[in-house]
Amino acid sequence: MTSPALGVCYYPEHWPEDVWESDAARMAEVGIQWVRIGEFAWSRLEATPGNLTFDWIIRAMDVLGRHGLKVVFGTPTATPPRWMVDKHPDMLAVDINGRRRGFGSRRHYDFSHLGYREECARITRLLADAVGSHPALGAWQTDNEYGCHDTTYSYSPAAKEGFQRWLAEKYGSVEALNQAWGNVFWSMEYNRFDQVELPNLLVEKPTPAHALDFRRYSSDQVSAFNKVQYDILKAKRPDLPVIHNFMSRYTDFDHYDLAETLDIASWDSYPLGHLAVSDEPDEVKRQYRRQGEPDNTAFHHDLYRAVGHGRWWIMEQQPGPVNWADFNPDPLPGMARLWAWEAFSHGAEVVTYFRWRQAPFAQEQMHAGLLRPDSEPAPAYHEAMEVAEEIKAVGMAGTATKGRVAVVFDYQSEWAWEVQPQAKGFTHGAHVRAVYSAFRKHGIDIDVLPPSTKSFAGYDIVAIPALFAWNDDLRTAIADFEGHLLIGPRSGSKTQDFSIPSRLGPDLPSNQLDLKVMRVDSIDPSLEVEVKGSGGVHLWRERIETKANVVIEDAEGWPVLVNQGKLYYLGASGTKALVQRVVDYLIEEVDLPILALPAGVRCRTRDGFRVYVNYGSGRATLTQAKDEAGYVLGGAELPAAGVTVARLATAG
Amino acid sequence: MTSPALGVCYYPEHWPEDVWESDAARMAEVGIQWVRIGEFAWSRLEATPGNLTFDWIIRAMDVLGRHGLKVVFGTPTATPPRWMVDKHPDMLAVDINGRRRGFGSRRHYDFSHLGYREECARITRLLADAVGSHPALGAWQTDNEYGCHDTTYSYSPAAKEGFQRWLAEKYGSVEALNQAWGNVFWSMEYNRFDQVELPNLLVEKPTPAHALDFRRYSSDQVSAFNKVQYDILKAKRPDLPVIHNFMSRYTDFDHYDLAETLDIASWDSYPLGHLAVSDEPDEVKRQYRRQGEPDNTAFHHDLYRAVGHGRWWIMEQQPGPVNWADFNPDPLPGMARLWAWEAFSHGAEVVTYFRWRQAPFAQEQMHAGLLRPDSEPAPAYHEAMEVAEEIKAVGMAGTATKGRVAVVFDYQSEWAWEVQPQAKGFTHGAHVRAVYSAFRKHGIDIDVLPPSTKSFAGYDIVAIPALFAWNDDLRTAIADFEGHLLIGPRSGSKTQDFSIPSRLGPDLPSNQLDLKVMRVDSIDPSLEVEVKGSGGVHLWRERIETKANVVIEDAEGWPVLVNQGKLYYLGASGTKALVQRVVDYLIEEVDLPILALPAGVRCRTRDGFRVYVNYGSGRATLTQAKDEAGYVLGGAELPAAGVTVARLATAG
Amino acid sequence: MTSPALGVCYYPEHWPEDVWESDAARMAEVGIQWVRIGEFAWSRLEATPGNLTFDWIIRAMDVLGRHGLKVVFGTPTATPPRWMVDKHPDMLAVDINGRRRGFGSRRHYDFSHLGYREECARITRLLADAVGSHPALGAWQTDNEYGCHDTTYSYSPAAKEGFQRWLAEKYGSVEALNQAWGNVFWSMEYNRFDQVELPNLLVEKPTPAHALDFRRYSSDQVSAFNKVQYDILKAKRPDLPVIHNFMSRYTDFDHYDLAETLDIASWDSYPLGHLAVSDEPDEVKRQYRRQGEPDNTAFHHDLYRAVGHGRWWIMEQQPGPVNWADFNPDPLPGMARLWAWEAFSHGAEVVTYFRWRQAPFAQEQMHAGLLRPDSEPAPAYHEAMEVAEEIKAVGMAGTATKGRVAVVFDYQSEWAWEVQPQAKGFTHGAHVRAVYSAFRKHGIDIDVLPPSTKSFAGYDIVAIPALFAWNDDLRTAIADFEGHLLIGPRSGSKTQDFSIPSRLGPDLPSNQLDLKVMRVDSIDPSLEVEVKGSGGVHLWRERIETKANVVIEDAEGWPVLVNQGKLYYLGASGTKALVQRVVDYLIEEVDLPILALPAGVRCRTRDGFRVYVNYGSGRATLTQAKDEAGYVLGGAELPAAGVTVARLATAG
Repeated sequence: MTSPALGVCYYPEHWPEDVWESDAARMAEVGIQWVRIGEFAWSRLEATPGNLTFDWIIRAMDVLGRHGLKVVFGTPTATPPRWMVDKHPDMLAVDINGRRRGFGSRRHYDFSHLGYREECARITRLLADAVGSHPALGAWQTDNEYGCHDTTYSYSPAAKEGFQRWLAEKYGSVEALNQAWGNVFWSMEYNRFDQVELPNLLVEKPTPAHALDFRRYSSDQVSAFNKVQYDILKAKRPDLPVIHNFMSRYTDFDHYDLAETLDIASWDSYPLGHLAVSDEPDEVKRQYRRQGEPDNTAFHHDLYRAVGHGRWWIMEQQPGPVNWADFNPDPLPGMARLWAWEAFSHGAEVVTYFRWRQAPFAQEQMHAGLLRPDSEPAPAYHEAMEVAEEIKAVGMAGTATKGRVAVVFDYQSEWAWEVQPQAKGFTHGAHVRAVYSAFRKHGIDIDVLPPSTKSFAGYDIVAIPALFAWNDDLRTAIADFEGHLLIGPRSGSKTQDFSIPSRLGPDLPSNQLDLKVMRVDSIDPSLEVEVKGSGGVHLWRERIETKANVVIEDAEGWPVLVNQGKLYYLGASGTKALVQRVVDYLIEEVDLPILALPAGVRCRTRDGFRVYVNYGSGRATLTQAKDEAGYVLGGAELPAAGVTVARLATAG
Repeated sequence: MTSPALGVCYYPEHWPEDVWESDAARMAEVGIQWVRIGEFAWSRLEATPGNLTFDWIIRAMDVLGRHGLKVVFGTPTATPPRWMVDKHPDMLAVDINGRRRGFGSRRHYDFSHLGYREECARITRLLADAVGSHPALGAWQTDNEYGCHDTTYSYSPAAKEGFQRWLAEKYGSVEALNQAWGNVFWSMEYNRFDQVELPNLLVEKPTPAHALDFRRYSSDQVSAFNKVQYDILKAKRPDLPVIHNFMSRYTDFDHYDLAETLDIASWDSYPLGHLAVSDEPDEVKRQYRRQGEPDNTAFHHDLYRAVGHGRWWIMEQQPGPVNWADFNPDPLPGMARLWAWEAFSHGAEVVTYFRWRQAPFAQEQMHAGLLRPDSEPAPAYHEAMEVAEEIKAVGMAGTATKGRVAVVFDYQSEWAWEVQPQAKGFTHGAHVRAVYSAFRKHGIDIDVLPPSTKSFAGYDIVAIPALFAWNDDLRTAIADFEGHLLIGPRSGSKTQDFSIPSRLGPDLPSNQLDLKVMRVDSIDPSLEVEVKGSGGVHLWRERIETKANVVIEDAEGWPVLVNQGKLYYLGASGTKALVQRVVDYLIEEVDLPILALPAGVRCRTRDGFRVYVNYGSGRATLTQAKDEAGYVLGGAELPAAGVTVARLATAG
Repeated sequence: MTSPALGVCYYPEHWPEDVWESDAARMAEVGIQWVRIGEFAWSRLEATPGNLTFDWIIRAMDVLGRHGLKVVFGTPTATPPRWMVDKHPDMLAVDINGRRRGFGSRRHYDFSHLGYREECARITRLLADAVGSHPALGAWQTDNEYGCHDTTYSYSPAAKEGFQRWLAEKYGSVEALNQAWGNVFWSMEYNRFDQVELPNLLVEKPTPAHALDFRRYSSDQVSAFNKVQYDILKAKRPDLPVIHNFMSRYTDFDHYDLAETLDIASWDSYPLGHLAVSDEPDEVKRQYRRQGEPDNTAFHHDLYRAVGHGRWWIMEQQPGPVNWADFNPDPLPGMARLWAWEAFSHGAEVVTYFRWRQAPFAQEQMHAGLLRPDSEPAPAYHEAMEVAEEIKAVGMAGTATKGRVAVVFDYQSEWAWEVQPQAKGFTHGAHVRAVYSAFRKHGIDIDVLPPSTKSFAGYDIVAIPALFAWNDDLRTAIADFEGHLLIGPRSGSKTQDFSIPSRLGPDLPSNQLDLKVMRVDSIDPSLEVEVKGSGGVHLWRERIETKANVVIEDAEGWPVLVNQGKLYYLGASGTKALVQRVVDYLIEEVDLPILALPAGVRCRTRDGFRVYVNYGSGRATLTQAKDEAGYVLGGAELPAAGVTVARLATAG
């Protein structure tokens, strides 16, 4: 694999053509190798139906190519022009309150609308023909940020018909659907598929299976939408990778599924905005407002490495203040460099800054770029240049080192607990990230695994927190696993049809885990139940019946952590302290090597290098690790937003 | 009257027929005598229009009957099948935002829709014919939880037409309506009844009389809906009682009115869920999260005793964690027993647990039953069995002892202050419950009285807090009363037409109470005005002009409690401490005997027994009361969730 | 100019005709000179279409005139009768969620509906003819509280068509609109004006220029609506002033613009309600709940003096508790007097109490009047009488003294930052009021200036905080100003088309201010960045590049206050302490005389008098100022809610 590279997002249509040349020259000067273009330009490519004008963007590609820049070309399907809405008025999605969502921004289309899907196929085909052979072209991007602005779900007639067809195909008979959904419960039985309603505007909640199936259906539409473009682009240029830029913490559709028609996954990393809109506690938001939460970005790196089957980019990297959160801080000096290095250490092939020049107009005029609106360099311009030089100097290549620890993340489990939290705020993701952070505090490399994983071989420890229902692959992986397995609360507590399994959760064979969750105590978050020893339980605890060994119990004698062989079951939402205690216990059991990291410092290894980043707002001092052979960038003293790269003694 | 009995809610349609027999046997083994069935089974009784299949439910009744169980048969009208919506698309209610509320859960009907009302008459008639003579049948239930999921109000065309007809009948002429509503105020005068709009989606609030009349109209529709079924069921079996299961703290329709076509009132008691969704302070929610608020359940017992003219049941008793609050705690061990005993002590004839077996599917799969989904006993199974044995052993029968204290509760006053709070959060119910709790802390038996009460004879003290408008009956009762009367803030401050009375509130003859409320100081809840002596005033205080005797005044010299003869007027929302002070003052005036109860302990007397229950989370020690002749269940030491029954010395 | 006078709002249609005479006599007894009538009486003036009955209101005017009272006659167009909606069903406005806002309260009309506008012209013409020559008539009022209840904006078809026409007129070509709005950004380009949508129910925010233009359009409709009535009334009686009663803190339309067709501005002053619904901190709300925030009322006095080009009234003065806030306190005894005196000291010609008698019916039955509903005097009756006597005794006349300090307030800047806050809660008004209060704490007279000001001559200090875009007049005023100028954060950071100016904000010539705002750090309000010396920065700070002199910088070395000549730029949202420090610095630079006022005391000068008012809840002691010649009302000791008037030594 080649060395990491930098990129930038560029909108030639926003600037006079006579600026393109100097823009390209300056990009090259910074050390940028990739330029993403095109994804919002439909109204300039086809100003009225059929009036195609691709010449100008080809000229832009010519300019970029002349400066040695490679182009990622984005299909413009996230921004259909106004005339498209005249042509297909019902292509507009309908929100959960039954209101059409109008033209005037972006993503104003319904994934269930087959007419619009065909329009997207048409423009993709035309573009593939027009620019597909351009020498500067290096990759494709499909659409832009699927799901952004809550656009995965639509409650339109098109969605209703599509959902009914999808159900007919899935269940075969309406009796099977009635059975699977438990429709006998409140006389909700359907006589025909065309009677099935969408699960919005009901009197009371729908059956959870109804809600979950609608999410599965909607997710499938996003994947199907992407496949149309993928097939066209690959048919034209089988050699070029097709990429999509996902949004972090957007889980409305299954990214693993969609990535079946991608070659590389990418995601858009806005650490400050994401912290601002997250549900992190206020003190974390204050402490890290100019850096971002120290584990969140890394978690997404590892997630999208899994989504992309190992290949992934940052397609949009925050370069300065953004415009879309309630509060949009200025990153600490150095963060635009730190974020790039951190991404590379987790295996990113390319980090593409968004965007080249801050636009003085329209919705994102307060979103920084590498250049200010007056074309002077913004701080990230210089930081990007620094990164470009450093990656050359360090000589890192290869891929992210495989971890000894893995954690399973599952989109369907996110949907399941949103549909039925039972304790408000109970989510799959929070449990996954809690375990992830507890391992990462010790400098341990972690992999994220999809629920389709068939084998855990090679890992010392695998964690499966709050996973709603087993599938056959996971059952096999669990049965065959010889390492330590930590199963978190609520895992396996449902069938795929969103019912309680007949042997109750966690629904594992008793020779694996002889344990039943009898009932749940759901706890107001202002309360914490003490745990014997240390730590606490909050939000959720399970009353379990077990013959397994109780490792930890709470102050009222409820088992919290039990184990049977190498399988551990955590029957509660632990506080940060308790999750750390459980993770530390496992690390000790396995005798996994750990690092003593200063607060706020994190690290990851790739290709024989360990990259340290300092998210703290003060200076930190590293202790040289046993497996390191010295620093090749920075040193033991890490300033705020600082980066140090160590070469591993064991490195090839 | 016979001894208290236990019941359970059962859904034969949810389980294979071959399980019915053992289910019935185990019910009998627990000591259960009553089984409620049928109320959600319409799609199994009539899968398509006119396709009636009652045979299976008759077989289920046969099975139950064979085990000596009596059946409460519920009409299934809360869950019309999907085909009904095809037949009557406009039967779906419309919410306050103008949106149709769709099929897919329950209660998807509009009380104003006369076509659906006729369908309900039809199925009720058919059911009465089919099962009305079954030997196991012991009672009927109409529909299920009227008003649940905010279904009393609909803003549909049907509701609008119904409202206009109702107004025409009430007012006779549009001039009378304009006069009553004060429509001259903003040129809101109507020329014809068919111009009257529903009071939603206006630019500013409607006149309060408009809003109140719409609530009265809507309440009347619920009563009319019930009457249709009641008349049919009584015509078939005049000997069997007709019951409805009300929801606590649901006050959108007038339960007293509706109960004119009931023989027995019942209510569904979910103490933990109700505490979770209540507006109790957070510390109360934390302290009692696994027990419920200690006075709320009892208040509803006393309320529904009034609603049922003395006859009442618990139709659904929480047996473990439920599924519908934001947080759903596990009850303390013993609570399923405590709640049953407490209900019996307040006069319940039957306490019916909801439900027999936890359903592993559909909306309520996280709602506990007496059995777990795997058919093993849940904790409440054993607790119910204990109760069944204990009630036999104790030998309590008869009715709840008539109290020496009564408090008036009025649904229209709830509506009135919701329409016009003047201080946000000012409610009738909160004032009623505050007084209720202050008396109950002393172990005093309290009765709840409806506003239609014509005489207070027999009571030592009657309290009327925050009652919006007098009616003739109440005026008579007040004038004739020889006991002590406590009138709370805002009482009598409006006419029945929601205007200020010409002599201002509280609008009593000056020989009864020479006092006028000149204006109101409405107070942000973060503030408290001190009261001379002790206690405080918050939310609401009245500037009153009076010749009566000032008993208590606040630190700024505003009269708080005044009295004239045996009539006391409290012109403020008191803090808990102040309400207790006022109540204690009255108790002393009347020389009412009180008990010294440990914190968290409450009691009630019935049929010569006093039942103590411990809502505290620790052990409590009772002091033997003077009127007691010893304990017949438990003893002076009450564990958490414990029950002690004392025999009264004076008992028959 | 004549002496200040009192008035009252009166609704003869609400009371039996035989009460009018005594009402008028008692008004005269109080010392009232003006009576506003008519503005809600349409249904009594025209009960059915064309059925005109003006006789009764003429008789009411006769009665009032007989008692020497002058009438302000309000056109009744804020309350179209029910039959009007039958005639023009589409005259009802549509809310931002797309719902028609129904009949049943007031202001149920769409400013874009030309048919209703014509109906208003018709009734105004008829009224002008019927009462325009009545000898008691002294002034007109148009409509009532434009914009109240969020009625400036409508999202109706009429609004859409009107907006499209307005845009076509403004931009001439759709290309110009696309350019101005930056529609290329997300392919949002329009092909024709009739494709332009209203900026509601979009998928994501519209371009800020789109949102701002819709606000400009909507504001223009309100002005156009008023002009129709103004032209008719002035044609009939050129000698009589036309007034409108604005709402404080309602900034949805441009009051300066509308006042181009007014002779006198007036506003409706409800200090307690306004504090309750404001975003003041809770401790301020508690401290001043019975007085109102001490600077808010005064600010609006000064604002409406600017809106009215010097001539202004209070058209509705709160006399006691009101009904429309969440909590409606009882004013401290004396406040109804204090508020009147404060208004007069800021130049009010008339203070009109709302209302004469509290209405026992309809929406405002809990709104106090000078009389109680039982016609007994409420406290404000006596306080008004006191004021009437005092103004005679003091002999104040003339106008408010011109200040030496001015602050610019701009409605478009309110819209701009609502459209694009960037830091949640960032507003123009808050910055204006912060500076205003800091000057006023020192007893300094302040003028408010509109953005159309062409010259700042005569002022020592002018402040322009958070003004979004310069216009030519302001640029001239700044360039020519010889005093000290304080420009606040974000000023000049946009063009009129809501883009970032090419030389970045604050976009002033470098010979005036050599400074560029490079980017912004938007700060969660729970954080505060320390400032060297004292004070702090919160919510907003700008990273600036400047060659000017740095006067104050924050603890991290960011410039906060810089100056170049007499121009000062404040590049941050300061805490109260920092704004005071900056203002104090300027006062010292200019050597402006200040007063040492006790906490809670404020003052203003008019016509050679200085009026002190005490908003504190305790007694305060004044120090005689050097320029005073003694007290003519009250004295150095000011009780809570007290008023003292000093005669200035320099007074004419």
